[in-house]
Amino acid sequence: MCQNCLVKTIHHASHHFGWDNANKPVVKVTPGSTLNLECLDSSNGHIHAASTALDINSLPFDKINPVTGPIYVDGAMPGDALKITIDAFDPSGFGWTANIPGFGLLADQFKDPALTLWHYDKTTLAPCAFGRYGRVPLKPFAGTIGVALAEPGLHSIVPPRRTGGNLDIRDLSAGCTLWLPVEVEGALFSIGDTHAAQGDGEVCGTAIESAMNVTVTLDVVKNMPLPSPRFSTPGPVTNHLDSCGYDVFTGVGPDLMIAARDALSHCIDALCREHGMQAEEAYMLCSVCGDLRISEIVDMPNWVVSFYFPKVVFN
Amino acid sequence: MCQNCLVKTIHHASHHFGWDNANKPVVKVTPGSTLNLECLDSSNGHIHAASTALDINSLPFDKINPVTGPIYVDGAMPGDALKITIDAFDPSGFGWTANIPGFGLLADQFKDPALTLWHYDKTTLAPCAFGRYGRVPLKPFAGTIGVALAEPGLHSIVPPRRTGGNLDIRDLSAGCTLWLPVEVEGALFSIGDTHAAQGDGEVCGTAIESAMNVTVTLDVVKNMPLPSPRFSTPGPVTNHLDSCGYDVFTGVGPDLMIAARDALSHCIDALCREHGMQAEEAYMLCSVCGDLRISEIVDMPNWVVSFYFPKVVFN
Repeated sequence: MCQNCLVKTIHHASHHFGWDNANKPVVKVTPGSTLNLECLDSSNGHIHAASTALDINSLPFDKINPVTGPIYVDGAMPGDALKITIDAFDPSGFGWTANIPGFGLLADQFKDPALTLWHYDKTTLAPCAFGRYGRVPLKPFAGTIGVALAEPGLHSIVPPRRTGGNLDIRDLSAGCTLWLPVEVEGALFSIGDTHAAQGDGEVCGTAIESAMNVTVTLDVVKNMPLPSPRFSTPGPVTNHLDSCGYDVFTGVGPDLMIAARDALSHCIDALCREHGMQAEEAYMLCSVCGDLRISEIVDMPNWVVSFYFPKVVFN
Repeated sequence: MCQNCLVKTIHHASHHFGWDNANKPVVKVTPGSTLNLECLDSSNGHIHAASTALDINSLPFDKINPVTGPIYVDGAMPGDALKITIDAFDPSGFGWTANIPGFGLLADQFKDPALTLWHYDKTTLAPCAFGRYGRVPLKPFAGTIGVALAEPGLHSIVPPRRTGGNLDIRDLSAGCTLWLPVEVEGALFSIGDTHAAQGDGEVCGTAIESAMNVTVTLDVVKNMPLPSPRFSTPGPVTNHLDSCGYDVFTGVGPDLMIAARDALSHCIDALCREHGMQAEEAYMLCSVCGDLRISEIVDMPNWVVSFYFPKVVFN
């Protein structure tokens, strides 16, 4: 019997909260192994279907973003790449989006906790109602996907790094292939922070945070040094969002961060004015479906960052 | 006879090189007027089908980016928005892409002039050959589209501004509607710098620069103050690029500009290594078809900028 054909399940109890190459592997696998990894949501279960915004204040920041793993892959050595084929997601059907004070692109403007709960059809993944306003298309992915760093010690799970981690790249969905630079023997792969939907930027700081199981296949590519994560998508990446086009808001100026903030702020203002939303509702909606794109970065001294809001939400 | 139903043609001789609200209008039109504006390419005809990279050194920088106009729109007053419906493009069939020393996202690495000439089918707009390497999908738009500033004097045409101008937003293609803030009586609309194709970012500093005629309809929306340009697309914006998916390269770090440079550099390295291109070829190719996107901007202190290269170019 081919060992590689067995799909191992890694229980979500096998998780950790930071990158540390001294973390003991929960399993050792051969290259080509397919694994089914149970992933907790980024609140580690703290936010649930009966939660209110008050629960944001008691988020256990030492226990956020649990990742399932680490997985030791036989033969993976520094200088190799870990090739991760993202096979499938099995979502839970429940998710949440929050404004967490101190966190997010407009943290200086949104200082109070806010919470949106989502109940979606985990089988059809049909667009999910956002209050009375519209429906948000879903596309599950893992926000955090990475391998251990060469540097010893515990490294926070929050920032993404050259070895991946909390990348929050919404196009790392089923069918994609991701390559990560291996820095320690066995690679020590972990995954978690699963999202049912997110726009480029994850502007309010959270997506549709949702526990789900993820199936991946792990391979080793020998002697493929990488400076940072690289991935390949099998087809279009915005089909779920783009059918009705976009309303687009721009930020123009010499600082990309300020331009991004301006573009987003203009969109939030328009959603409040034209759809009657509260500002924090618009902010959270933008985070789960709107995209930040750099329209131009060369016309000195002013750059253009655009925020693309998908009109399908209201159709 | 309905005056607004007549399509006026504005000859490309009616152009200027900077935003100045003292510029004399070339025509006054009523709201709802449809105009056919002849647009020169951004080199003002300096680069032609027999040009070589040497001609980049003699670019007349005081005569670049000519824009056709200005058009005075009756009734447009400060506090209004000029609504521009982008009806159609009639491209010339010839274009060019250059690395211009001192200009572009990687200007410090690409110090020598380089030039690519493009001959495309102006009727079918079929993807255009890029040497022996592949074919680039086309989607015409006007890189520069704007109205006069309230501040008197001549303002450079190069940087985009709150009133539009050299926005280089590749999705401002046929079928879109753009709203610009009016700052002076009559708005004083101008357009030019037409491109046959460009990726988000315009990373090498030029697109497929190409003279073409543009048909637009100009309207006034009273009392619609805008902080910066806003636009709406009628449908998907990446269908011409995304059918085969993307190869994506990331930049991860605390500075969006450096992350963007890293993501682009990793893509150029891969194009050279895997497709045998020269680096300056890869740089120009990236500029006309690859997209810079902000994947996440909230996971302190590191952001992720991704460069999306469309695989259809090689298929």
